[in-house]
Amino acid sequence: MQTLTVALENRSYPIHIGPGLIARGELVAARLPQPRAVLVSNTTVAPLYAERLTHALRAQGVAVLAVTVPDGEAHKDWRTLNAILDALLENRSERGTALIALGGGVVGDLTGFAAAVYQRGVPFIQVPTTLLAQVDSAVGGKTAINHPLGKNMVGAFYQPLAVVSDTDTLATLPPRELAAGLAEVIKYGAIHDPAFFDWLEANVARLVAREAEALTWAIERSCAIKAGIVAGDERETGERALLNYGHTFGHAIETATGYGQWLHGEAVAAGMVLAARLSVRMGLLAASEASRIESLLARAGLPVTAPALGVERYLELMGHDKKVRGGRIRFILLRRLGEALPTAEVPPDTLAAVLREDTAPGAVPARPSVHA
Amino acid sequence: MQTLTVALENRSYPIHIGPGLIARGELVAARLPQPRAVLVSNTTVAPLYAERLTHALRAQGVAVLAVTVPDGEAHKDWRTLNAILDALLENRSERGTALIALGGGVVGDLTGFAAAVYQRGVPFIQVPTTLLAQVDSAVGGKTAINHPLGKNMVGAFYQPLAVVSDTDTLATLPPRELAAGLAEVIKYGAIHDPAFFDWLEANVARLVAREAEALTWAIERSCAIKAGIVAGDERETGERALLNYGHTFGHAIETATGYGQWLHGEAVAAGMVLAARLSVRMGLLAASEASRIESLLARAGLPVTAPALGVERYLELMGHDKKVRGGRIRFILLRRLGEALPTAEVPPDTLAAVLREDTAPGAVPARPSVHA
Repeated sequence: MQTLTVALENRSYPIHIGPGLIARGELVAARLPQPRAVLVSNTTVAPLYAERLTHALRAQGVAVLAVTVPDGEAHKDWRTLNAILDALLENRSERGTALIALGGGVVGDLTGFAAAVYQRGVPFIQVPTTLLAQVDSAVGGKTAINHPLGKNMVGAFYQPLAVVSDTDTLATLPPRELAAGLAEVIKYGAIHDPAFFDWLEANVARLVAREAEALTWAIERSCAIKAGIVAGDERETGERALLNYGHTFGHAIETATGYGQWLHGEAVAAGMVLAARLSVRMGLLAASEASRIESLLARAGLPVTAPALGVERYLELMGHDKKVRGGRIRFILLRRLGEALPTAEVPPDTLAAVLREDTAPGAVPARPSVHA
Repeated sequence: MQTLTVALENRSYPIHIGPGLIARGELVAARLPQPRAVLVSNTTVAPLYAERLTHALRAQGVAVLAVTVPDGEAHKDWRTLNAILDALLENRSERGTALIALGGGVVGDLTGFAAAVYQRGVPFIQVPTTLLAQVDSAVGGKTAINHPLGKNMVGAFYQPLAVVSDTDTLATLPPRELAAGLAEVIKYGAIHDPAFFDWLEANVARLVAREAEALTWAIERSCAIKAGIVAGDERETGERALLNYGHTFGHAIETATGYGQWLHGEAVAAGMVLAARLSVRMGLLAASEASRIESLLARAGLPVTAPALGVERYLELMGHDKKVRGGRIRFILLRRLGEALPTAEVPPDTLAAVLREDTAPGAVPARPSVHA
């Protein structure tokens, strides 16, 4: 087991990464202020892992109540949030009772937001079971639900007390979801760590083949980069915004196509390609480096062509983005592999050219979702 | 104008108290990160003061969008919160755009919670127009909405950037609402400041007659006490809980009778009497001091007899309280005037006796609400 720390003074917390961790109830139990917890999972993950975790917690003397929510990004909304809050109130869950999120990014974001607002904040633990959640959404304290007019528009910065990433759970992950997680892994290399990007180019086949050693290293390195950035800028007033590379375009794709059609990581992959092309057209990035990003994403099994929604529709959707300031859309661009910069200084014609020429009609992810 | 500070390090903020402050747009404008604001008010307060505040802000170069919500505690719910969030999204309100709450405790709690969760947190300013909001709810960062199973069960700790309390607004306040504010003023004396309690006994008639000098001092002293307690315990892990004196019983009364039948301050007044009687029965407080509290509340025009809901119903309602820990209800009791203590060690028989013998069938506030 590897353990990293997200350094946030009196709110610092450990990230444990390794095989078999769900069965190690003490990793969660040691962080709980009282021996009670509510385990939130979804209809896909609960049958696979909820019993194992519940058993491990009960062996530590922790009383566990289970709440199961529907699976999928389409359910990351008020309705599901309220279902969790209703269950907490009906079961008289208290201020000291922890919420444990067992699942992917949707379960983590929803459960974290429920923990942030129930009784103005209760303890929260992340047990991510997808690669995307293990390398990204479970780390750093962003919680949210979606609004019909924009993704993650309602939420809170709310840190967990611990993140327990059991790499064994990746064995049951559908190939499309594994690839979606790799999109964020590749992002860390592209914005922050050229050596890690090189390593990914050399090892992407091992990752796709789910070699345990390669996956563990990719998760560890991704978490270390994210933890370092979050520790320096918890509330995204500066450097943390670089983590949104590919996300301005990506969120527009997700919103336009309906949540759940494109997986988040897939939309981010296509968005990273658009942001790289924009960087090239603005003379910031070498075309060869943009090609390396596109090629690596494709080898990871990710879609690299964004859908042609039309320039107007893209601009409208991106105008709802949280990164808009003073009416201007802010983009994260690349200067070179491993170095990103935020800017609102994008010439409208150049942006329009990217949205028109670097997209394709009817572009969709390569494979159908197994979570239809 | 008097100015106090709530000392919370880099989140410290001023409380301005005085006449004519709504017309002084610079008090708000100086705190805004960008010259844009969304003014949230209700159908009662907006016609009285929204134009004055909007005009003052525009004179400072601030663009103002108005959102009006229905009046009353019954609307402090998901539905109204979502109406505010929808308006923010439809108008493309950004991360730097401030929300300004103009109104009483309901508008402040709702708007503050909307500010806490919209885009994971946007700037927030309180312009309280009721005595209750000026002495209590606008200060200290508690925001929330109600749930059918409990008051303020969903919310956030989220501090404003400033509180601007224009004492002129108290001139239009219905008598019943003025009295409800005095309940919290009396609470500060009872739990923390015996000299202030003495002053209130000597000056309650001036307060009920709305003498400006007396009201200003009562607001200032109340804010100073609350600010001091909040600065030492922002998230209510200790001393801040003392501010809930009367509230465990009071919330039960509010929930049982339907939000809005009893005003919050009225329910707290009756709850303070029950808590004082419980303190006396437990041998903590002299009966003469409990009588002084009851007498002062009555002179302020407040109900001092809680409704007889039945012991079981009270216990059930109080079991949903946020102060429950390990299944045990926590009470704030008095040892003497000016000294409160939290405890979960209340003998069940004594509690039952208070709930049975110190309540009255059909007890209701003395005067009908003007906000029916």
